[in-house]
Amino acid sequence: MPELRKDPIIGRWVIIATERARRPDQFSAPAEGPAEGECPFCQGSEEHTPPAILTYPNSTHDRNKLDWKVRVIPSIKPMLKIEGDLGRSGLGIYDMMNGIGAHEVVIETPEHINNIADLSIEQIDNVLDVYIHRITDLSRDNRFKYVLVFKNHGWVAGGGRIKHSRSQLVATPATPKRVKEELAGARRYFDYRERCIFCDLIKQELESKDRLIIDIDGFLAIVPFASRFPFEIWVLPKKHACDFIALDGSSRKDLAKILKIVLLKLKIGLGDPPFNYIIHNAPFRRPKVGYWKTIEEDYHWHIEIMPRLTRVAGFEWGTGFYICPLPPEDAAKFLREVKVEVG
Amino acid sequence: MPELRKDPIIGRWVIIATERARRPDQFSAPAEGPAEGECPFCQGSEEHTPPAILTYPNSTHDRNKLDWKVRVIPSIKPMLKIEGDLGRSGLGIYDMMNGIGAHEVVIETPEHINNIADLSIEQIDNVLDVYIHRITDLSRDNRFKYVLVFKNHGWVAGGGRIKHSRSQLVATPATPKRVKEELAGARRYFDYRERCIFCDLIKQELESKDRLIIDIDGFLAIVPFASRFPFEIWVLPKKHACDFIALDGSSRKDLAKILKIVLLKLKIGLGDPPFNYIIHNAPFRRPKVGYWKTIEEDYHWHIEIMPRLTRVAGFEWGTGFYICPLPPEDAAKFLREVKVEVG
Repeated sequence: MPELRKDPIIGRWVIIATERARRPDQFSAPAEGPAEGECPFCQGSEEHTPPAILTYPNSTHDRNKLDWKVRVIPSIKPMLKIEGDLGRSGLGIYDMMNGIGAHEVVIETPEHINNIADLSIEQIDNVLDVYIHRITDLSRDNRFKYVLVFKNHGWVAGGGRIKHSRSQLVATPATPKRVKEELAGARRYFDYRERCIFCDLIKQELESKDRLIIDIDGFLAIVPFASRFPFEIWVLPKKHACDFIALDGSSRKDLAKILKIVLLKLKIGLGDPPFNYIIHNAPFRRPKVGYWKTIEEDYHWHIEIMPRLTRVAGFEWGTGFYICPLPPEDAAKFLREVKVEVG
Repeated sequence: MPELRKDPIIGRWVIIATERARRPDQFSAPAEGPAEGECPFCQGSEEHTPPAILTYPNSTHDRNKLDWKVRVIPSIKPMLKIEGDLGRSGLGIYDMMNGIGAHEVVIETPEHINNIADLSIEQIDNVLDVYIHRITDLSRDNRFKYVLVFKNHGWVAGGGRIKHSRSQLVATPATPKRVKEELAGARRYFDYRERCIFCDLIKQELESKDRLIIDIDGFLAIVPFASRFPFEIWVLPKKHACDFIALDGSSRKDLAKILKIVLLKLKIGLGDPPFNYIIHNAPFRRPKVGYWKTIEEDYHWHIEIMPRLTRVAGFEWGTGFYICPLPPEDAAKFLREVKVEVG
């Protein structure tokens, strides 16, 4: 059973991931990506993975039949386990709980394609639909507070050795610290101005255009003013909404299109760099107090894409200050000028 | 001039480091360490670096004469610049200020030695003395709120291509977010118990011994209960003190010894892994309000060492949850058993 432990000073939770445990002497090997074997994620190799949780589009029939477009499986090295209770306990000054949660892998294509940017808009739309389906399903489990959807592309970004496009969902028993910080920041602004900070940010970026990459079909992509990473990209819906999962079918397809455009710009412009993306979504359990009081009005879901072209060093760990060696305006100009065709 | 920009939602500051700027098309090269040329940090190559800010032990005479033991120079790619004023300004919803600060490099030895663990205890003591000297000097500049001392060892940990042991000092115009979080956490505990949380932690770790690596000469080294990284190590003074710079000569030498022991254990046990260390010290400007009110009683300086054997991926960036694939108790046992000789 993985164990969640809380740092008594900072209050940061850490997952001691027993399912991913290595022996102490196994850490001295260099952390380079080993060569790739046969791909267990391709169509026809379903028996090499655990049984599917969901297949798209035929989820109501045999989940493991071979004509799937998107397939969701439990992680074989889960950071959190689905069975059990939270078992909160203490040990002197320390607090811990069982590592309860869900950890799923979304296989984004039956074909052996490495980068989601190379999937069709229709296929990316299918992937987004699956995200929404799985978040909705996991939100019914009362033990969970949040579902994080993210992608690790490339070895440096935490991607695995197998070059088959996939993303991950993790349901956590506590609202993560970073999510709370974002909610609290949006709340603070709303308290003062009675406006959504993201809506104001969108208005300002559309007027100045300095950091705008693209503005299309109700979505925009910008390089954020205080980028942590060179070529960091935020994709935001122009229409205010706190829930990603409330997206309608037509808007979801528009989102698939802008995602394909910006991810293809990254791939072509920068030679397929490693990146992470994260869907910043409102938590689904929202008592009408604290951060959650005005969340429908003050929070605005969006996607953050973080290319991993620089190394995070002692200074960032020690301070929480990030160092970005590229002015965001230059990054936006560069990305605007990368030509892509999305059909 | 580097620019400090504040994320309007989270409140996180980012340094847009113009002195380290690269053109957008220079980011697509793979981020591997290139081959090493002639070392500018060795004795006899002083003309290849900027003039020294301090040399030890002969700082009052010619700072660039050749018989130095430790040498401090300004960074040639400073993340912050020493000249100018803070120039706080706004742009719509955004806030920024000039990137004012100091960025210095401490060359830890005149010899071409890569790992500080291979320096003598006397030499590490000299390095610590230089840290104290430079923090004290920078604290006199009213524009600065904090001085961070840190080391990036190895390419993955943000170290440079030249394999000559050195560390860095950065003076910042704002108290960093992570530092504030730690101060606030210590304050919260003190408010409730009227005891220092670090003193309680030390007591508990000395009693349980499960995570203890070594207990010697007034210092202890532990693997923290909620380690973010496998083999993370904290070195703490048993005697309560919030100021690292108040360390007396005899304790400083004891610190040099325990540092050498644990860094040598890391090097030998894990094959010279990349790591960062950071001195967690109290800020030097302390109005008697807020976090600072009881800081002499509630904060406890220490050093955190973070081996970089795992990759930080989307999940950590998105949540602030860390995943550690090695139980801290196993890491401590492994490090206890690595035999080292320090003379």
